[in-house]
Amino acid sequence: MRIAVVAPSCPLKREAAAAVKAIVEERGDCELTIHAQCFLSDGHFAGPDQARLEALREVMADPAVDAVWFARGGYGSNRIAEAVLIDLPQATRSKIFMGYSDAGFLLAGFHKAGLNAVWGPMPQDVLREGGKAGVNRALDWLVRRDVAALEPALDGPAMAFNLTVLSNLLGTPLEPDFSGIDLLIEEVNEHLYAIDRSMFHVTASLAIRKIRRLRLGRVSDILPNDPDFGADDAAIVEQWCTRSGIVFGGRADIGHDSANRIVPFSTENR
Amino acid sequence: MRIAVVAPSCPLKREAAAAVKAIVEERGDCELTIHAQCFLSDGHFAGPDQARLEALREVMADPAVDAVWFARGGYGSNRIAEAVLIDLPQATRSKIFMGYSDAGFLLAGFHKAGLNAVWGPMPQDVLREGGKAGVNRALDWLVRRDVAALEPALDGPAMAFNLTVLSNLLGTPLEPDFSGIDLLIEEVNEHLYAIDRSMFHVTASLAIRKIRRLRLGRVSDILPNDPDFGADDAAIVEQWCTRSGIVFGGRADIGHDSANRIVPFSTENR
Repeated sequence: MRIAVVAPSCPLKREAAAAVKAIVEERGDCELTIHAQCFLSDGHFAGPDQARLEALREVMADPAVDAVWFARGGYGSNRIAEAVLIDLPQATRSKIFMGYSDAGFLLAGFHKAGLNAVWGPMPQDVLREGGKAGVNRALDWLVRRDVAALEPALDGPAMAFNLTVLSNLLGTPLEPDFSGIDLLIEEVNEHLYAIDRSMFHVTASLAIRKIRRLRLGRVSDILPNDPDFGADDAAIVEQWCTRSGIVFGGRADIGHDSANRIVPFSTENR
Repeated sequence: MRIAVVAPSCPLKREAAAAVKAIVEERGDCELTIHAQCFLSDGHFAGPDQARLEALREVMADPAVDAVWFARGGYGSNRIAEAVLIDLPQATRSKIFMGYSDAGFLLAGFHKAGLNAVWGPMPQDVLREGGKAGVNRALDWLVRRDVAALEPALDGPAMAFNLTVLSNLLGTPLEPDFSGIDLLIEEVNEHLYAIDRSMFHVTASLAIRKIRRLRLGRVSDILPNDPDFGADDAAIVEQWCTRSGIVFGGRADIGHDSANRIVPFSTENR
């Protein structure tokens, strides 16, 4: 199992790269290559669009690579997601692609293009409290499809997204077919009023209304609302489900934390 | 000219109400009624959804009211915008509706329903530096269609939106027909990476790509980006226009400030 790490959004921290390499050595069940592009810096991004695009295209085309692991989130993968999907090399079809948060733009477009997109922890997560467990969970899935790594209540086709990322990919060429899936969402670092607004936007989408049910992961580091919003994140999400006729399926075990579980976008690999 | 003020989003401050009443008395060219609902408070909102909806429906149905002036922005008008448009009373057709920022959800839906929606300063703006001029500009338009109040470069059909509000109404039942219009946008209180993400979302919309051109108002109180984003707001907007084949029409004289100009959504009143 050869895993290639690239950074389509923001740069990977050197100490995260070293810690993940140490974990891989300790495990001894896979090979990990961290692309030099991961450490580029260009304003907000891990190098200019062209450098991020080329690194991703390079590992996608490499027949020796079994899995492409997105280094971290942040912001920026949407800027190259469409270009990455043009003239897909045949070698791309057999690979697995893992990440979450901002990488959701890629997961959406990749799944739509028939590739194996998987929501799961990323190398930069090793720096979180308990991050080693998160990274090992990701590797357990990448290396041996360990079902213990999966979000525990998955029982059919599913997708997982950060709510803001989901809201921003609706209506774009990256929007996948949501028909009949369990949609798992999570959020981080937003005001409750903004979460309410995103839920309005997302649940108004006729494409989203085709889902089987919506499940809510963790909403962390909520920014202060002045005055107090008057409802918590779960109440907000349930209310918009009720308003839009979407079935609310309860909580989900995903989020911006080291307990974040695996959600394959296709059931073929489960 | 009888103007009714209601608050579909957040509560109006008492001192703003008093200051606007004083301006109206000084002018002596119109009557202003501030609905008691403006001062309700329910968590984030100027009263529960039902109270905000009923107050707005009440003034829309009142044949003695010539103009409905939204008290302020914030967040929340989207929660009642669809319900407000059901079974529109005939008396609604001859009125003018003014506001901006969060009220953009209403302006969009109202314009789509054939009502006279107008972007312009709101009563709460009187508390801004130079706010009296902004309020007088709004009243100059409402009372006597003073062309000096208009955004100076308007030369055809136009609409104006806060960028985040626009992003969140795309794909919802509030989305109007953008074909052939000048689209004026402005933003406040966002990170540059979030502005870039909103521009990705908005310019990917095929409905938005039908506009004649996009013009950029003021982007104020930009939140810090760590690291520095690498491009400013104007460069971000121009780049997404270039990428999406949308004509960039330069700057526009709108924004979250007292210099904010008037943009009628229909040319019939200009």
